[in-house]
Amino acid sequence: MAHDPIITFTTDFGVSDPYVGTMKGVILNINPTARIIDISNAVQSYDILDGAITISQAYPYFPKNTLHVVIVDPGVGTARRPIIARTEHGLFLAPDNGVLSLVYEKEERVNVRHITAEHYFLQPVSQTFHGRDVFAAVAGYLSKGVDSASFGDEIKDFVRFAAPKPKAVNGALKGSVIKVDKFGNLITNFTPKDVPQLFGADPAAFKVKVGKAEITNMRGAYAEGAPGEVFIIVDSMGFLEIATNRGAANRTVSAEKGSEVVISF
Amino acid sequence: MAHDPIITFTTDFGVSDPYVGTMKGVILNINPTARIIDISNAVQSYDILDGAITISQAYPYFPKNTLHVVIVDPGVGTARRPIIARTEHGLFLAPDNGVLSLVYEKEERVNVRHITAEHYFLQPVSQTFHGRDVFAAVAGYLSKGVDSASFGDEIKDFVRFAAPKPKAVNGALKGSVIKVDKFGNLITNFTPKDVPQLFGADPAAFKVKVGKAEITNMRGAYAEGAPGEVFIIVDSMGFLEIATNRGAANRTVSAEKGSEVVISF
Amino acid sequence: MAHDPIITFTTDFGVSDPYVGTMKGVILNINPTARIIDISNAVQSYDILDGAITISQAYPYFPKNTLHVVIVDPGVGTARRPIIARTEHGLFLAPDNGVLSLVYEKEERVNVRHITAEHYFLQPVSQTFHGRDVFAAVAGYLSKGVDSASFGDEIKDFVRFAAPKPKAVNGALKGSVIKVDKFGNLITNFTPKDVPQLFGADPAAFKVKVGKAEITNMRGAYAEGAPGEVFIIVDSMGFLEIATNRGAANRTVSAEKGSEVVISF
Repeated sequence: MAHDPIITFTTDFGVSDPYVGTMKGVILNINPTARIIDISNAVQSYDILDGAITISQAYPYFPKNTLHVVIVDPGVGTARRPIIARTEHGLFLAPDNGVLSLVYEKEERVNVRHITAEHYFLQPVSQTFHGRDVFAAVAGYLSKGVDSASFGDEIKDFVRFAAPKPKAVNGALKGSVIKVDKFGNLITNFTPKDVPQLFGADPAAFKVKVGKAEITNMRGAYAEGAPGEVFIIVDSMGFLEIATNRGAANRTVSAEKGSEVVISF
Repeated sequence: MAHDPIITFTTDFGVSDPYVGTMKGVILNINPTARIIDISNAVQSYDILDGAITISQAYPYFPKNTLHVVIVDPGVGTARRPIIARTEHGLFLAPDNGVLSLVYEKEERVNVRHITAEHYFLQPVSQTFHGRDVFAAVAGYLSKGVDSASFGDEIKDFVRFAAPKPKAVNGALKGSVIKVDKFGNLITNFTPKDVPQLFGADPAAFKVKVGKAEITNMRGAYAEGAPGEVFIIVDSMGFLEIATNRGAANRTVSAEKGSEVVISF
Repeated sequence: MAHDPIITFTTDFGVSDPYVGTMKGVILNINPTARIIDISNAVQSYDILDGAITISQAYPYFPKNTLHVVIVDPGVGTARRPIIARTEHGLFLAPDNGVLSLVYEKEERVNVRHITAEHYFLQPVSQTFHGRDVFAAVAGYLSKGVDSASFGDEIKDFVRFAAPKPKAVNGALKGSVIKVDKFGNLITNFTPKDVPQLFGADPAAFKVKVGKAEITNMRGAYAEGAPGEVFIIVDSMGFLEIATNRGAANRTVSAEKGSEVVISF
């Protein structure tokens, strides 16, 4: 590795409290050359799926030797295991609660270890902040070159869940809003593969029901939308998104995270 | 350049979503030594003037070899051009929609190029996230030393607008609130040059109308204000600001971004 | 020092405005190798105690040669002094308004200097933004190795206040909520030392009144709480916290920063 080690953060710790800064302090105290990049510290509190979506969208763009620290950890202090997951596209540190599920889904080969080497932890280990006492400390040592095998044995029964997929119901497809972004765009769990009818040479007419709106237009770029028009668009992460040009679709259609999205033809 | 290259971000992408982290990943994947500094990722969504104000206030303080990435891009995916602007005080990457207007205003010499060298882009280029596919990728290569001439030809017809200035109306001067800061200070588009009467040896009596308030005092420091008093003050960026000591002037006077500000003597 | 100098930021400047980015620019212009880490820029506006709590919780985890810049400065532009405080666990730059009080409380030896060497400042020095003109500039030079003695003489009468402690009132102990974190946890100013009855071999029964709730349970980990249950817990910083499992205690009990907390046995 010719460059300083890169560590990313994906957490639900927020940016107002000293939690994230404290974790950075722990890492830098162990390895002052580490370079820490925030992916997001605004994952919705306790929301493992939101954390899983966030890290799965960003990590493929980082260098392959990046260490990704992913902490959404409502079970902190209980028996859930801290893990290191090694893939071809990065190393991941997280609680074993499924927050890496969408990483596992994208990766062909995953090696997962249960972190048990307590001599690497910050002592005494609290029951309330393993982000600091366990994960940041281990991140520091990993970034210094300590081999992941030194932290614990491989496990095969790590926790993973499937991302919620749209389902066929009464001739329509029923999915949901998985995220509302800063612009108010409603990101759904539909991908083009779920609705190939929309992407052929002769696309089918369609209707999307979400919130109080019925949407019948698809656009290729946000700015193609007419003023006030709500449309669907394939977003930069490969999901169908409900959006409006220079406006906030979530307010226009009165929908939010978790809202039902029904597509019929 | 004896130090690692410095790249700043001024965007409306927010800090909750993975957009900014993804852009940083793209840059670091191309140039892992780049050091990325956030100026602000909380520019108001789609608000080109807000982005223009933000970057114009911060860039003069950075080293002259800094690369500033400025993405407020409601026209992403349409014909608007991606550009590189070279000035004596930094290099700028942005969509050609006027977001650099206030940089152009401060700089004597500007060289602007239309970025067309698609082999530097992340492929396939989406229609929805050029921050990632175009600007971050180009930033990575620029920071590695690729010459700006390699990315496209010089253009002269780049988009620029004039910042809104106060106007004389019925013997008074009419301006507006261009920004409300985190403290609730109302930053106006008046500068001392617009109202020299207030800054001479014998300053004129004045009245500022904004929201539901009439202000007749000027202070030199925030803490000079009496409890509850609203006053004008010359802020750190050279604008007249409406403020209150240890309080939020926007709430006190019921004004917001865009509110009219009238000064009479 | 074998690594690039580390500088942290604890401010109330927010992340939307260009203030923090501008300060980073000033530092990097003086010392482009400085590595700047945000502890928090979301200290409550003008709230010196909130700033004092934030820095005091995070700094012990950083390397001992870290420079901590702590700016909550409602008195900017008045006679309050800019200071450098040297301790065994870090160097601190701040206005002399007490914002370092909880650092002084933790440190056995503190050397404080009044910064008067104006030739290190950004000229002209504004009356409204010493974070940029004084503190960032001095931080840049300190990080380059300029000795702290070069910036001014030692002072002994620096401002310090005692953190508000719980008091015995009518047989009960009366304290308060000093912070509400991103999860809605209510952090109180009680530490285990204030209520040793709760931590012995045979803990006493207790009742905590806060907001509209009466709490009688203590838990060791958040996830031990039953659904909807509000409990007290010793948090990662050593304070008693009022919390709920996967929920927001502040909303459940209707309390906020400053709310009274009464413990009786």
